[in-house]
Amino acid sequence: MSDLFFVSSNPHKYDEAKKILHGFDIKLGFSKSELEEIQSNSLHEIARKKAQHAFSKLKKPLIIEDDGLFIDELDGFPGPYSSYVFKTIGNKGILNLLTNHRRAKFISIITFFDGETLESFDGRLLGSISKSPVGEGWGFDPIFIPNNSDKTFAEARDKNKLSHRYKSLKKFANWYLHK
Amino acid sequence: MSDLFFVSSNPHKYDEAKKILHGFDIKLGFSKSELEEIQSNSLHEIARKKAQHAFSKLKKPLIIEDDGLFIDELDGFPGPYSSYVFKTIGNKGILNLLTNHRRAKFISIITFFDGETLESFDGRLLGSISKSPVGEGWGFDPIFIPNNSDKTFAEARDKNKLSHRYKSLKKFANWYLHK
Repeated sequence: MSDLFFVSSNPHKYDEAKKILHGFDIKLGFSKSELEEIQSNSLHEIARKKAQHAFSKLKKPLIIEDDGLFIDELDGFPGPYSSYVFKTIGNKGILNLLTNHRRAKFISIITFFDGETLESFDGRLLGSISKSPVGEGWGFDPIFIPNNSDKTFAEARDKNKLSHRYKSLKKFANWYLHK
Repeated sequence: MSDLFFVSSNPHKYDEAKKILHGFDIKLGFSKSELEEIQSNSLHEIARKKAQHAFSKLKKPLIIEDDGLFIDELDGFPGPYSSYVFKTIGNKGILNLLTNHRRAKFISIITFFDGETLESFDGRLLGSISKSPVGEGWGFDPIFIPNNSDKTFAEARDKNKLSHRYKSLKKFANWYLHK
């Protein structure tokens, strides 16, 4: 039985998080749930409120993730609203918005809450937006090329060893195993 | 002294609301405040929570407004996130996202709360997105052309007599004056 749950409405994210934490010998359960999110430009603020909201429902130790794609030329758009923007204008829309400046970063914030201790851990990955979508993948993966790579996230075989999500979960795991 | 306050961080919206309600003999004060907003695709849900949050701070009868531009071709984008999208990709970004299908609507929801009674009133205005920005105005006004008009909102002299905001405030005023 898991003693730690990942609360999210997105099974793709859970799937990645489970595999990554498995590498640290942490077993992760899934609580599929649509959580209330505040509108804020601060991923940390969104994360804290969401973790508290999740705990009030689940009443078990949990982690949640907030992540976003931040595009320099677009002042950080879609940022905290990445999920909504993906569902509406999608990758095609993002590509239509860009000219030559294509620098972007993915940020993931993992927040742990067990009713007493609230801790957040972030991971970042710098890269750029491709000229067109390449590869099969969810979200913005087909249009994001990490720095020092020539493949999009959707093509990368080792995404779970280099992603923003891997970095934030690794920080979390090191803390969790020694707390 | 006003006995009704408009709570918003946006003085442009207050200015329009004050002028419109003046036509109904309702005096409107301004409480400039950044309110917490949840992320939701439902303007009504955002509005209710925001009105309650505003009242917990101000403790006086108040109205708040939630509005958005909903573009058909973009599945309703930018919708509830209009303010964020305007600040990041702006009108130029919206224009880059569109091809030939340009139908859009503005929606305004006015929510009243006095600690006991919570009521919402909505106003809609159908139109289309122009090919380029025309006129000086705030927000999406320079790119929105109401149906049966050949001018953008930014050029219209009678915006306050036909806008989504006018329609929601008129409904509110009729209710407020007879409650």
